[in-house]
Amino acid sequence: MSSSPYSEQPGRIMSREMAEQPEVLRRLLDTGAPAIRETARQVAAQRPRFVLLTARGTSDHAALYAKYLLEVRLGLPCGLTSMSTTTAYGAKPDLRDVLVVTVSQSGGSPDLVASTQAAREAGAITLAVTNNPDSPLAAVSEHHIDILAGPEKALPATKTYTASLLALYLLIEGLRDGDGAAAGPLPDLAADLLARQPEIRTLAARYRFAERMVITSRGYGYPTAKEAALKLMETSYIPALAYSGADLLHGPLAMVDNISPVIAVVPDGRGGEALQPVLDRLRGRGADLVVIGPKTHVERASAGFALPTDGVPEEVQPILEIIPLQLLAYEVTIARGQDPDAPRALAKVTETR
Amino acid sequence: MSSSPYSEQPGRIMSREMAEQPEVLRRLLDTGAPAIRETARQVAAQRPRFVLLTARGTSDHAALYAKYLLEVRLGLPCGLTSMSTTTAYGAKPDLRDVLVVTVSQSGGSPDLVASTQAAREAGAITLAVTNNPDSPLAAVSEHHIDILAGPEKALPATKTYTASLLALYLLIEGLRDGDGAAAGPLPDLAADLLARQPEIRTLAARYRFAERMVITSRGYGYPTAKEAALKLMETSYIPALAYSGADLLHGPLAMVDNISPVIAVVPDGRGGEALQPVLDRLRGRGADLVVIGPKTHVERASAGFALPTDGVPEEVQPILEIIPLQLLAYEVTIARGQDPDAPRALAKVTETR
Repeated sequence: MSSSPYSEQPGRIMSREMAEQPEVLRRLLDTGAPAIRETARQVAAQRPRFVLLTARGTSDHAALYAKYLLEVRLGLPCGLTSMSTTTAYGAKPDLRDVLVVTVSQSGGSPDLVASTQAAREAGAITLAVTNNPDSPLAAVSEHHIDILAGPEKALPATKTYTASLLALYLLIEGLRDGDGAAAGPLPDLAADLLARQPEIRTLAARYRFAERMVITSRGYGYPTAKEAALKLMETSYIPALAYSGADLLHGPLAMVDNISPVIAVVPDGRGGEALQPVLDRLRGRGADLVVIGPKTHVERASAGFALPTDGVPEEVQPILEIIPLQLLAYEVTIARGQDPDAPRALAKVTETR
Repeated sequence: MSSSPYSEQPGRIMSREMAEQPEVLRRLLDTGAPAIRETARQVAAQRPRFVLLTARGTSDHAALYAKYLLEVRLGLPCGLTSMSTTTAYGAKPDLRDVLVVTVSQSGGSPDLVASTQAAREAGAITLAVTNNPDSPLAAVSEHHIDILAGPEKALPATKTYTASLLALYLLIEGLRDGDGAAAGPLPDLAADLLARQPEIRTLAARYRFAERMVITSRGYGYPTAKEAALKLMETSYIPALAYSGADLLHGPLAMVDNISPVIAVVPDGRGGEALQPVLDRLRGRGADLVVIGPKTHVERASAGFALPTDGVPEEVQPILEIIPLQLLAYEVTIARGQDPDAPRALAKVTETR
């Protein structure tokens, strides 16, 4: 008798949770949005002047997405917290006028709870974004946003990532008194993307024997590149290095050649335009370049996956563009005969301190 | 006739510049420190409440070191700038009371100049840290610190990295009205480390055929891990993935096994203590673990390089601990028959926009 709940059909749980994404996004838009709008109203009334975002792993990439939104659309200077400054070194920064946003699926990591509590004691406005309103993190934070994604069982986070992005988008729309209407089409578009899994299966064959990968993007697409790299690493164990296009030119480009395949996440908008010179350099070096982005860019690459970007503003595209990359991590892992549900060595709630 | 200035003796230029580090550090302490102290006095009088650090590549790792110092020793909340928010998206954040520190060896990257200028127009106190007082970046910044490292010709930055760290340490000591005396022994200790190059040559043999590496640390040692990974990648082209110990447990650990060697940079202090559980996990998985850190930690690892940490406070250790890792990148590259001076595809001043 098998002792593992994961062994029956590899990837069954991750597959089911990826498939729930349209429903999760719809739930957040239909039933979660009013509470998020009210939280945004309360936070805005406290007039934060700076924002610090605190998270780890997948949630850190959601926090990075929020950083772009806050800086570009709200004009608030932002930073990502280096958590060990509080938890290891006992730093006591002056956090008056600072909004500290902590993002955590479980709301259970002791280091996040401790650093959020310390921030609150240091005068910060604290806001937790979690998938568990009963979590210790929600309890220690002044404000809480529930991403309403339902229990997540697979070790690689998928639906909680897209739900966190959408919740953060709605929060920041609320802070700037926007209507968030651009998010309306996301559930249907997410369903369309999921239906194209066979296309991704074909693409995955390319990476069956890859020994490393580089994933690059710029602007709003950069958090997607980081999350895609993490997803590939934690499921397939392929070392996947994520770089902003600009950073790639500052060193790691030396490593890219015809044995390091490159995936470029090309936002349809200014981020994609800023990435253009990097794509030209990669093509000039003969890199195997796979593009996740607008159809016109995919056609000029070695291969790719066209995203529906018509009428989807650049700032909400990240909520869609990670989906084919989640599917890619899943399909590459299956192709390699491994189980995406249960990577070696990982626990769902990581108890770092 | 050879057309390349690099071809005569591979690594000649990088080797010479690494060897200059004791002299560069001494120059900065002896002749650069008074100007830095005066700059610190002027910046402190402007009473910044929040700090944004802007840099790319190697300088970004120096900026990250400054972030730890600012948060832990000065209690100022900090963020690292996502440059594309300004250069690609035209974000106009409100930067009153914000100190924007831009770190760049050349002071010539157009995107750094543009984002610093935009920050100044948005009300920020601007400070540039460069190796060229006549650079465009120095010109657009309100304050400037010269790292006095002399011309750097090798593409992999070495002496400008340690000089930037020391300049930033002295700046932040000035801001907190400290005396910076802990930096006094650094030039001699750096010379001692450089003299131990044969030890590193032995260690380098281990990575002659490595297809990937993981480098981890925590706290003050984390910027060293990132810089070491970049150095290895841009010279030897080995994909080297840097993770904070906590992040490593959140996913990429699945990728670490006996074919992914791990280098741990273990600070002698709280960062090293916080890294301890990660080291235990790595040992438990049978990882090939090489430690750069205090002698007691090296003895418990597969191999390592002992750092002189007696009487060297944790916050200045990063200025030393990168040196054996620079030497390692150099030696691994030589062992692979490549030229560390002239990696493929890179230019010294990267003209990203």
